[in-house]
Amino acid sequence: MSGSTTGDTNVEEESITVSLLSAQRSVPNSTSQVAIVGSKVCPIESLDYEIFENEMFKQDWRSQGKLQILQYICMKWLLCFLIGLTVSVVGFCNNLAVENLAGVKFVVTSNMMLETPAAAGSGIPEVKAYLNGVDAPGIFSLRTLFVKIIGSISAVSSSLLVGKAGPMVHTGACIASLLGQGGSKKYRLTCKWLRFFKNDRDRRDLVTCGSAAGIAAAFRSPVGGVLFALEEMASWWRSALLWRAFFTTAVVAIVLRAFIDLCLSGKCGLFGTGGLIMFDVYSANISYHLDDVPPVLALGIIGGILGSLYNFLLDKVLRIYTLINEKSIFNKIFLACLISIFTSCLLFGLPWLASCRICPADATEACPTIGRSGNYKKFQCPPGYYNDLASLIFNTNDDAIRNLFSKGTDSEFQHSSVLIFFITCFFLSIFSYGVVAPAGLFVPVIVTGASYGRLVGMLLGSHSNLNHGLYAVLGAASFLGGSMRMTVSLCVIILELTNNLLLLPLIMLVLLVSKTVADAFNGNIYDLIMKAKGFPYLETHAEPYMRQLTVGDIVTGPLQLFNGIEKVSNIVHVLRTTKHNGFPVIDEPPLSESPVLFGIILRAHLITLLKKKAFLSTQVPTGIDAWKQFSAEDFAKRGSGNGDKIEDIGLTEEEMEMFIDLHPFTNASPYTVVETMSLAKALILFREVGLRHLLVIPKISLRAPVVGILTRHDFMPEHILGLHPLLVRSRWKRLRIRFPSWGKIF
Amino acid sequence: MSGSTTGDTNVEEESITVSLLSAQRSVPNSTSQVAIVGSKVCPIESLDYEIFENEMFKQDWRSQGKLQILQYICMKWLLCFLIGLTVSVVGFCNNLAVENLAGVKFVVTSNMMLETPAAAGSGIPEVKAYLNGVDAPGIFSLRTLFVKIIGSISAVSSSLLVGKAGPMVHTGACIASLLGQGGSKKYRLTCKWLRFFKNDRDRRDLVTCGSAAGIAAAFRSPVGGVLFALEEMASWWRSALLWRAFFTTAVVAIVLRAFIDLCLSGKCGLFGTGGLIMFDVYSANISYHLDDVPPVLALGIIGGILGSLYNFLLDKVLRIYTLINEKSIFNKIFLACLISIFTSCLLFGLPWLASCRICPADATEACPTIGRSGNYKKFQCPPGYYNDLASLIFNTNDDAIRNLFSKGTDSEFQHSSVLIFFITCFFLSIFSYGVVAPAGLFVPVIVTGASYGRLVGMLLGSHSNLNHGLYAVLGAASFLGGSMRMTVSLCVIILELTNNLLLLPLIMLVLLVSKTVADAFNGNIYDLIMKAKGFPYLETHAEPYMRQLTVGDIVTGPLQLFNGIEKVSNIVHVLRTTKHNGFPVIDEPPLSESPVLFGIILRAHLITLLKKKAFLSTQVPTGIDAWKQFSAEDFAKRGSGNGDKIEDIGLTEEEMEMFIDLHPFTNASPYTVVETMSLAKALILFREVGLRHLLVIPKISLRAPVVGILTRHDFMPEHILGLHPLLVRSRWKRLRIRFPSWGKIF
Repeated sequence: MSGSTTGDTNVEEESITVSLLSAQRSVPNSTSQVAIVGSKVCPIESLDYEIFENEMFKQDWRSQGKLQILQYICMKWLLCFLIGLTVSVVGFCNNLAVENLAGVKFVVTSNMMLETPAAAGSGIPEVKAYLNGVDAPGIFSLRTLFVKIIGSISAVSSSLLVGKAGPMVHTGACIASLLGQGGSKKYRLTCKWLRFFKNDRDRRDLVTCGSAAGIAAAFRSPVGGVLFALEEMASWWRSALLWRAFFTTAVVAIVLRAFIDLCLSGKCGLFGTGGLIMFDVYSANISYHLDDVPPVLALGIIGGILGSLYNFLLDKVLRIYTLINEKSIFNKIFLACLISIFTSCLLFGLPWLASCRICPADATEACPTIGRSGNYKKFQCPPGYYNDLASLIFNTNDDAIRNLFSKGTDSEFQHSSVLIFFITCFFLSIFSYGVVAPAGLFVPVIVTGASYGRLVGMLLGSHSNLNHGLYAVLGAASFLGGSMRMTVSLCVIILELTNNLLLLPLIMLVLLVSKTVADAFNGNIYDLIMKAKGFPYLETHAEPYMRQLTVGDIVTGPLQLFNGIEKVSNIVHVLRTTKHNGFPVIDEPPLSESPVLFGIILRAHLITLLKKKAFLSTQVPTGIDAWKQFSAEDFAKRGSGNGDKIEDIGLTEEEMEMFIDLHPFTNASPYTVVETMSLAKALILFREVGLRHLLVIPKISLRAPVVGILTRHDFMPEHILGLHPLLVRSRWKRLRIRFPSWGKIF
Repeated sequence: MSGSTTGDTNVEEESITVSLLSAQRSVPNSTSQVAIVGSKVCPIESLDYEIFENEMFKQDWRSQGKLQILQYICMKWLLCFLIGLTVSVVGFCNNLAVENLAGVKFVVTSNMMLETPAAAGSGIPEVKAYLNGVDAPGIFSLRTLFVKIIGSISAVSSSLLVGKAGPMVHTGACIASLLGQGGSKKYRLTCKWLRFFKNDRDRRDLVTCGSAAGIAAAFRSPVGGVLFALEEMASWWRSALLWRAFFTTAVVAIVLRAFIDLCLSGKCGLFGTGGLIMFDVYSANISYHLDDVPPVLALGIIGGILGSLYNFLLDKVLRIYTLINEKSIFNKIFLACLISIFTSCLLFGLPWLASCRICPADATEACPTIGRSGNYKKFQCPPGYYNDLASLIFNTNDDAIRNLFSKGTDSEFQHSSVLIFFITCFFLSIFSYGVVAPAGLFVPVIVTGASYGRLVGMLLGSHSNLNHGLYAVLGAASFLGGSMRMTVSLCVIILELTNNLLLLPLIMLVLLVSKTVADAFNGNIYDLIMKAKGFPYLETHAEPYMRQLTVGDIVTGPLQLFNGIEKVSNIVHVLRTTKHNGFPVIDEPPLSESPVLFGIILRAHLITLLKKKAFLSTQVPTGIDAWKQFSAEDFAKRGSGNGDKIEDIGLTEEEMEMFIDLHPFTNASPYTVVETMSLAKALILFREVGLRHLLVIPKISLRAPVVGILTRHDFMPEHILGLHPLLVRSRWKRLRIRFPSWGKIF
């Protein structure tokens, strides 16, 4: 065939008969050896992301009957049900514990905090990075789960200015991941039925559902939870997943509702009707008109600026903390103690700044407040008086938000008290994040935003028709929009929290304005944290300079290849000397006429092969014998960090001289790009299909059959700009306002 | 380099210096000729879908400064704003017209219906197919837009049982598409500023925003609109699009709110406060407990069965209608008249079946109703009495829904009246769809479901704590879930319609149950209609047999190739004799040492080249001269059906003997797959990246550089199973309940 093709020659393909089990076809100009190999190739895998990584695994999948498929589907939904059930039970117990523990402040927590630095932070950036394909070690272990739950309860109940939504998302994701991998192998809690879910795609789906369940349980906001998972967390999304996430959060909603029914009969200790966060303060009709729009716009603009400032400061503080914490464990403990003591001093000290106010005659509830939560805290005041700052500070965060959102209380607070509370919340939440154990950002941002909005409402006074509580809701929306930068999900979460759909147009307006304003300064808070933590997050867009490069420009060597039938000692040597996770497999003469790319094999599978010692004594293909030695279980995806290591495998001198037939264990349909492909286009393929490895093949046919492998790290802007420093000036232009001198202050 | 590579050779890549404008690099073993061509290649395009299809276009894009980018971004948002504004104005006028015209029944419409068969149906399947990549002719023309708007107003106001939501979605998509392509060329309404949007990706994004705006305007449900576009309409989705769709629907929400403010002062004729559909009947607290769950479950199950039955019947009726309509235009008119007359007979005749009921003493409104809309229609009854069936039938659909949803009216209706109304709606909506002019399905399904739910509530009577109006809401939810099969978006739309978030857990439960039950029988109604219309819709999942095939198995010839510098007569011949839209471009000796794939060129671009007569007299590359002859405008995507045709281009004998240098106009970075790639994996690449053409390259390097091109049609199950009929038995198993004998009845 060589030389027979000219420009307008029509290459005709014969119509081909394919038998059901082995697709044999005549490949022109290939030797019979290749044909033998070829008949085994028959590539079956795929489904969105690489769920089947080798031929063995595929074989098992294909042989499943209807019963197995039914079992798989049932398990899929059952898992979602269990995630929903577990997350809602945990969420409920979390709330129950917080409400009951709120009195026992600063006791449990200070110890917990020092023991669990690993589970610090909200966990949302970690889960988001996982869903993008970055598997940080131990984020979904059973230990992390327990530390997270207990740490979150004690941190929140200690009145530290931290939220429970972030930890709930991480908790939900943990539960989903543990259920998906069939329990914890370490603690011997495994289940055979769950074997279908030991692959990346199914686990990622479950984790997405788990994080949706987390938000749903934290805010009793099922639709908001689904949208949060879709908008903020997931990097890949299919409509089937929407439906499953919806199912999961529906379970959460219904189970929580059942628990509340139980609690209404007063069996839950201090936990009352309003325990689960839900600021149902606006069920009455409110009306607003076109002339209310200008102050709302102003609120949104300032909220956006404040939100981006919040992100900026949080990022800087987090980087300083990292520097301090890196030095020694004592620094870490000292920092945590410092913030904790500082917080408690502030909380006890600040209310003294506010003067006592006389109880209103027409108060709808007891004044001063009897019991734990209420609008009129007595603090140091004489009977018949209350301290308005204490009403905000001496409550759980949920109660503070409820007080700020409440309507008909326009005269309850003094300007100075709300201002002090706003400034305290703004800075305290920044300094609390990243030091103490599990700490969410949602609730602190809502508290801060609500106090900001209430302050604006009070300053406007009679110039506006809207009441101060509504301003607090809109302020919370604007600050959330300015900091988190979500739109639809935040909108729905706020609606579900405040339970009033009539607010919708105003909330949409505020969110749009504040997000737009804040986007002009910097990025989403979770992205900033992810960047500060150094996760290689793969962005959706291709940067402009990527259009000027080809994949050949960024492929770096040396490339490690394996022969279709490879010597054991070679494999061991390569695995020991490199850290690559995938290796191209090549068929060479005499197996084929010229070197041909057969596929790609994973490190984990090679280690399994070495461990099982499925060796051949000669370099001759043996066919299907190898299939019987393995089950798909052997190649199932392990929990994070549970894989075997090459160093643990002992091999004799004799074994080192033997061979392995890699063909049955190779993924014979890898995605490939030609080396002259635009880097931007390759990134889109990599990102949209959700790949881990992308093979680069040569344009000119006479060279080696593979030029290199691209992985996530090759697409990171830092890596590319390191190779081609001149391209820095054509980075992604976000049309952002920059303050170069500001950065130097820190 | 030939022969130098063995299995574990490390192919090392030199680190390469790349200048900013032309990426020159040393390609081993390529002639200097190739190097000349190669320096021009420098592939820049991409961004998700193929937005830049040739080198010229790319050049223009790259040369844009910050100002142009700013202009592009501003235009993008301005367009979304305009879409939102226009759709909400249209939506408002639509409602205004319906409310005002409702009295003038059966007059305007019967004429309209006969004139506009082209715009029949809801339009949602067409828009959905477009967003999947299927461009049906004329669906977004200015003419379709006007016919749709006027037709929808007259159809709805004529009391035919058709909805306005579907036509509003189509209207929104039309407006978006027309704005995106810079107005209508035919009517000389164009705008130069809009030139950035003349490509597939941007137009698709705008159409998505437009369809979200349509639902938002029809139901005053902005969040529901975004989710509808996401869940039901869009085949590709990016979070940036979520944000833009949200912006669009926010504009709709705010503009509609402003109009309502205007109308509250009574300037809108018969259009009252409740004119825009919004069944705000549940703002008071309702409570429900665990023992209410079983009847709600039963409601969901039966609703699911009814919904799937509805889909089944609608599909069959639609197919019968198609058969009738195909025969002659008289059949079409006759059918339309028949349904129209039948509907009016039913509407006037049925209320006589119901007996007069005495007005309740404690009615909250006038009884019998004074004016147009109300709960107690007098019809033929004496004073102090009302006809309950007339209250349902003699109202607009919106008012009928409001009556059914209303609470505190448990004794208003008789069992028999609601049953008659349910049966009438069920069958009348099936027979009305597909005959008359623009007809939505949302409202008929809601009416039918609400009457079904109300009936169940009445049958349960005192056995349930929930009131009948709530049963009607849940019945509507179950019937929607059973027919439309959406989850999150329906849930939000129902919440936004009824304005009560406390219903959320119950609605979620009902939707989950009904969708699950209905999915066991058949598919989503829009998918069924799309299938009946024969659109080549590309599914997300790969069918099992696709894993047993390679792309080589389905590539069919003959393949048409072009040389890098091709003779004009060859191009003209190929364009005249084939209907392909893309052609591989090959560089052959002497331009390169061996035949090399250069890229892919589009038919539309070839026609532009022929039209501009950018010919060379000899087969020698000339470099950059050709760049000056063209602007990016020349290669901009035209409105649907506006492209030039090869038959319209006249060329002299002399010109036919000349050559064209195709290199600058070729997309030099096409996506490629190796012929042994699993078909399932190739489908995922094709689907996720949103391709139109996928090049298949050979595995063995000595053959021609391209084996074939895959397009959408090659991935259609019908095509594949036509080539490999034995694979039929391994089609996608949906584990569905089938009634083989039922199908034969029709």
